Amino acid sequence: MAQTRSDDENKYSKSLYFNYPALDVSLAFPQATPASIFPPCTSDYYQFANLLTPEEQALRLKVRECVERDVAPIMTKYWEKAEFPFPVVPKLGALNIAGGTIKGYGCPGLSITANAIVTAELARVDASCSSFILFHRSTMLTISMYGSEVQKQKYLPSLAKLDTIACMGITEPGYGSDANGLRTTATKVEGGWVLEGQKRWLGNSTFADVLLITAKNKNTSQINCFIIKKNAPGLQATKIENNIGLRMMQNGDVLLQKVFVPDEDRLPGVNSFQDISKVLGLSRVMAAWQPIGITMGVYDMCHRYLQERKQFGAPLAAFQINQQKLVQMLANVQAMFLMGWRLCKLCESGKMTPGQASLGKSWITLRGRETVALGRELLGGNGILSDFLVAKAGVA
Amino acid sequence: MAQTRSDDENKYSKSLYFNYPALDVSLAFPQATPASIFPPCTSDYYQFANLLTPEEQALRLKVRECVERDVAPIMTKYWEKAEFPFPVVPKLGALNIAGGTIKGYGCPGLSITANAIVTAELARVDASCSSFILFHRSTMLTISMYGSEVQKQKYLPSLAKLDTIACMGITEPGYGSDANGLRTTATKVEGGWVLEGQKRWLGNSTFADVLLITAKNKNTSQINCFIIKKNAPGLQATKIENNIGLRMMQNGDVLLQKVFVPDEDRLPGVNSFQDISKVLGLSRVMAAWQPIGITMGVYDMCHRYLQERKQFGAPLAAFQINQQKLVQMLANVQAMFLMGWRLCKLCESGKMTPGQASLGKSWITLRGRETVALGRELLGGNGILSDFLVAKAGVA
Amino acid sequence: MAQTRSDDENKYSKSLYFNYPALDVSLAFPQATPASIFPPCTSDYYQFANLLTPEEQALRLKVRECVERDVAPIMTKYWEKAEFPFPVVPKLGALNIAGGTIKGYGCPGLSITANAIVTAELARVDASCSSFILFHRSTMLTISMYGSEVQKQKYLPSLAKLDTIACMGITEPGYGSDANGLRTTATKVEGGWVLEGQKRWLGNSTFADVLLITAKNKNTSQINCFIIKKNAPGLQATKIENNIGLRMMQNGDVLLQKVFVPDEDRLPGVNSFQDISKVLGLSRVMAAWQPIGITMGVYDMCHRYLQERKQFGAPLAAFQINQQKLVQMLANVQAMFLMGWRLCKLCESGKMTPGQASLGKSWITLRGRETVALGRELLGGNGILSDFLVAKAGVA
Amino acid sequence: MAQTRSDDENKYSKSLYFNYPALDVSLAFPQATPASIFPPCTSDYYQFANLLTPEEQALRLKVRECVERDVAPIMTKYWEKAEFPFPVVPKLGALNIAGGTIKGYGCPGLSITANAIVTAELARVDASCSSFILFHRSTMLTISMYGSEVQKQKYLPSLAKLDTIACMGITEPGYGSDANGLRTTATKVEGGWVLEGQKRWLGNSTFADVLLITAKNKNTSQINCFIIKKNAPGLQATKIENNIGLRMMQNGDVLLQKVFVPDEDRLPGVNSFQDISKVLGLSRVMAAWQPIGITMGVYDMCHRYLQERKQFGAPLAAFQINQQKLVQMLANVQAMFLMGWRLCKLCESGKMTPGQASLGKSWITLRGRETVALGRELLGGNGILSDFLVAKAGVA
Repeated sequence: MAQTRSDDENKYSKSLYFNYPALDVSLAFPQATPASIFPPCTSDYYQFANLLTPEEQALRLKVRECVERDVAPIMTKYWEKAEFPFPVVPKLGALNIAGGTIKGYGCPGLSITANAIVTAELARVDASCSSFILFHRSTMLTISMYGSEVQKQKYLPSLAKLDTIACMGITEPGYGSDANGLRTTATKVEGGWVLEGQKRWLGNSTFADVLLITAKNKNTSQINCFIIKKNAPGLQATKIENNIGLRMMQNGDVLLQKVFVPDEDRLPGVNSFQDISKVLGLSRVMAAWQPIGITMGVYDMCHRYLQERKQFGAPLAAFQINQQKLVQMLANVQAMFLMGWRLCKLCESGKMTPGQASLGKSWITLRGRETVALGRELLGGNGILSDFLVAKAGVA
Repeated sequence: MAQTRSDDENKYSKSLYFNYPALDVSLAFPQATPASIFPPCTSDYYQFANLLTPEEQALRLKVRECVERDVAPIMTKYWEKAEFPFPVVPKLGALNIAGGTIKGYGCPGLSITANAIVTAELARVDASCSSFILFHRSTMLTISMYGSEVQKQKYLPSLAKLDTIACMGITEPGYGSDANGLRTTATKVEGGWVLEGQKRWLGNSTFADVLLITAKNKNTSQINCFIIKKNAPGLQATKIENNIGLRMMQNGDVLLQKVFVPDEDRLPGVNSFQDISKVLGLSRVMAAWQPIGITMGVYDMCHRYLQERKQFGAPLAAFQINQQKLVQMLANVQAMFLMGWRLCKLCESGKMTPGQASLGKSWITLRGRETVALGRELLGGNGILSDFLVAKAGVA
Repeated sequence: MAQTRSDDENKYSKSLYFNYPALDVSLAFPQATPASIFPPCTSDYYQFANLLTPEEQALRLKVRECVERDVAPIMTKYWEKAEFPFPVVPKLGALNIAGGTIKGYGCPGLSITANAIVTAELARVDASCSSFILFHRSTMLTISMYGSEVQKQKYLPSLAKLDTIACMGITEPGYGSDANGLRTTATKVEGGWVLEGQKRWLGNSTFADVLLITAKNKNTSQINCFIIKKNAPGLQATKIENNIGLRMMQNGDVLLQKVFVPDEDRLPGVNSFQDISKVLGLSRVMAAWQPIGITMGVYDMCHRYLQERKQFGAPLAAFQINQQKLVQMLANVQAMFLMGWRLCKLCESGKMTPGQASLGKSWITLRGRETVALGRELLGGNGILSDFLVAKAGVA
Repeated sequence: MAQTRSDDENKYSKSLYFNYPALDVSLAFPQATPASIFPPCTSDYYQFANLLTPEEQALRLKVRECVERDVAPIMTKYWEKAEFPFPVVPKLGALNIAGGTIKGYGCPGLSITANAIVTAELARVDASCSSFILFHRSTMLTISMYGSEVQKQKYLPSLAKLDTIACMGITEPGYGSDANGLRTTATKVEGGWVLEGQKRWLGNSTFADVLLITAKNKNTSQINCFIIKKNAPGLQATKIENNIGLRMMQNGDVLLQKVFVPDEDRLPGVNSFQDISKVLGLSRVMAAWQPIGITMGVYDMCHRYLQERKQFGAPLAAFQINQQKLVQMLANVQAMFLMGWRLCKLCESGKMTPGQASLGKSWITLRGRETVALGRELLGGNGILSDFLVAKAGVA
């Protein structure tokens, strides 16, 4: 919708032509197809399909088809509004992928590799969608690893269908990497606990039905973990505004003011930061697949754009200087995929160290940034429009 | 304002805590001051003030004070809405800098160096503001170089005060760098000309009072240039939506459908693309000062952030790995400033070649991207919030 | 040996202390072990051994042991003299790896992956040694693919034992990538051919017993390939002097002045540049493993150096800024290895395209340079001494 | 000279064609002129001559002419032998630049800018020559700042003419950046001092007539500085072998075993490491001009090479992908020059801080490496030959 000067300054009168709606990008720039019609996947240059089982391949194609059809056409609109694309939730729910590697309780029991491939396919089309699933899935994994049988049966089936949404709360304003900085406290009271503190950067928190919150047990000084429901008195979750990267992700500030949690909602298995660390290690592998998926999508977009867009009478793809960038992007995607795949195999063998996960994630992220920056150079002015995907990816 | 699931999906009921307003960043993250209170300028490490005349220095401080006071506090709000900050216009008008290097007609007749310094100071706080001035000023310069005496007296004084706003229209959807691709035509008719065509990426076009449009003269096949007023029948300017970089800049698509321009509104001096190229050469120097200003602001922001934000009991500035990045940013800013300054001196000598301008602009832009990327690494998670300036700069 | 001024200038008299021999590096810089005692292999962070067959693993360790023992102690001496380390030849011959993937004719019939691993292990300790084998092996492969049964039986067994050395001659001074530029000609005469032309950059050519030379058949204008023996009249092979990279490799300029080749020494299978291209494609995969091996060695060296060398009372490895570089090197090595490994698998499947080979080789080379540059920064001043391996690798 | 296998292995007989001398590069590769005929200076794209005084410009051309004529033709030969090019010494002496900024005592009293320009012009053709002058000049500067009047009159005039050569000894094997690590001691004895210790990396030390050695005064624990003559009993200076970078520079290991220094040869002005630091600060500015000069030469070489060398029927300069690299190199040289120039101006104003010098030197060095790496890519295979300058520069 057009803005008018008169909104702000009386001395400016509203200009007539502000009433025209914006030109659709397909009219304004007919030379190149926008990402709402998502380009075909062209990045599997080293035949990675051969590294997957037939089940993993089939799942990959099923997820890809879904996000290209259901997410791609609407993502620019939601990005622009910085809103979460709720219509996507039931579509992802129907894919039955939210439960990830968990077995039973309505979860699909995917292999680690399959779980990673799903993450990449979501991120390829939209990184906010994959982030949504990442946060949700990590929370479910924590419940499955450290929850009681009753808790698992109560919460996991509905989370697996995405009928309810989960959120995990570890980070606080005052500390990031330094776990000793945790300030949120849990005080034992009759029949339960009282939580007091402030959390920040919690993905999904503004609309989650279930929040897992870490807090320091005031008696034992140990870290414990509690399930809080969204309507708990004293709980206040607000969106972090002015978010440029992952605009659709609803990262939140969460205030806990004397929030009562009944005894039955404490996860019995979490008694130290080390317990939480195990989940974070597994999550790190999945998080590493997000840049892999993002750069796959960016490569696909650039690949199509260079063939469609003409300059000096020839498609951009005909210029050696552009080919060089595209080839470097393609090579980076191959190497990122292989690093992520190797991490999955180490993880599946049960021997992955935290160091291996961190090394892989940081390297993949670095190459991801490099790749997206190359993509943005290839798109020229259109590189700053979310219509062409790359700018959106660049700030992810 | 909080979004509710019920906007999109009936099966989700509105959550109670959505009614809470977002936490102000100063409460949500008390450890670091946001850019609405702009950090002091700390990037003049090589005493560049000594390379300026006293008048240039005084102007620099006057502009800096204005934008820190009048622009910094409101820019995040406008950025988020992707709207142009109209309240800023009269403040910039009062600085008397819009006329740039033009002498007479109410313009300040700045030195080229002073003009560059102004550009950088605007961009330091907000790149959309400096872009607004860049486009407006280039249009004025074209009128002053190629307009008749009558045209200059008619248009320049009000543009110099920013009482009216100007826009320049060269680029078209079908061509970027390739001037031969120009498709907009001007056909001679009784008493004037009829223009027909489509332009794209025109800065300020959605609210400009005066548009300069280039078109191919159907008789001579030469490039001519025409002044069009905003309410001209057949003119339609619409905003390019989904813009992630420079969100506040109102870049537009402009359609010209049988727009009549009276003879008196053709610029007599423009008869070829070479004439336009002269303006573009000068504009390129000023455009090079935009990344200089942006990185100055980013450096200032990071410099303050690293001192305020603590991890593991010490400010981030105490970690060698962060110092290294900050030092590299500072060195880049020094080199970028010197390159820009040298370009100004070449330009003032009257001997600057187009090659010199292009070399400088492309090098400065490259280093600018590198510098902003370093800054974003330093800010961690907060690097994706426009509150802390760097993400906003990163997509500029 | 010490140089004296009096060599050059009579007015300088020889200084007494020039008679002292250079201090051994272990005395001059006792804090760090030089590469003549090669550091243990520490780069297999992602357990790549698991991607190899037991035979491939065993061969890897056998080759590693040999080069660490027989090559590492002498390589600095030969590098400094820019001479080929002939004593190494029988040691490599005894490993029975020179025949590579060729089956029969005394060759080991290695898997492609095994062949690659051998290349990397040689390059890890000395890139000149691996280059020597690369050139020798490509020539053997050409004979095995395009030679007659008689030629194979005559030449391959002795080449497989490294009793004779082979060299391949394609490149000419006037062309590099452009195959149409080939100027060397073969003219049919009674009982054979007369070759005339000039070749450049031929590895091993200054001491090879057998040279394969490509030439344009003057009758058919096709590319043919001829076996020339080292004492052929009219053949002149001279070393390319002033070689900084791979100083030990004896790259040569080869002049062919009316060199007679009997009919029996023409390879019957080579009739076009496409035939040669097949060999070059396979060679490219092996060449890609050279930077992999080089960076493995560089990483190992830096890893040891950072633990041994102290500054400000602590080993260099204790400084975060050094750790960061080392970690980035390690991650690059993992990704390079995986890219090389995937290329081998594609190759073994018989479906590798020339594009896949080129993409992999250029990407691996790029990351190799980046990695060696990081290593050189870690070594400070000692980074320019061949004693510490990295400088030697840097110019490879 | 050709090597024969029989040097090493009896079973190999000497090959006949080993007796041919190497082809001169002008015959072996006639397409490109080697650096022995140095290319014209083409890097002054931003008209830096205008930033120099007429005297500085004249000196620049005089030095350039001398090194192009006297140094360029012989440098490859000396580089290959890793020997110092003594014939150059009297030529540089005749230029009267060795005394640098020192006034009186036969020294030229150059401006700091002139001194920097001289450094760059030497480094442009050969970095070993400029290093030789850098070390010599720093030693002279130390004597002029901290020596007695008698010492200045005794040593400076002959050093200014390069009739005698000086060397400065600060670094030790056990410490680099950490001044507290100094282990060399000076013990007061009758009529003088006895020095005991070990130094490393001393430029010019293997043939210097005068060595300035820092040592810790055993009585006061202060750092003092002593003049030692080359034939002093107990002094042993040996060349650091296996040096790949700056091969011609004669960096030395210096052993001091009970070396007696008479009282008159102690510099009265040096009483702390701070005194030495002042010299190092000034030297750092000059050292920053070395990469500036090196990259000027590399740019010049690449600029000529791209025009001479043809591929696919066109000079390499016709390919956009090569132009891009060349332009980036040129831009880097401009920015490096401006940073160096600004440092000189800060230094001349007397207000330069150590931080400013370090920032400039490290940034210039970083960009220098980047530029030389680009140059090496442009030269293809010839990039590893010292004939074409770039490889030689790459390891500097």
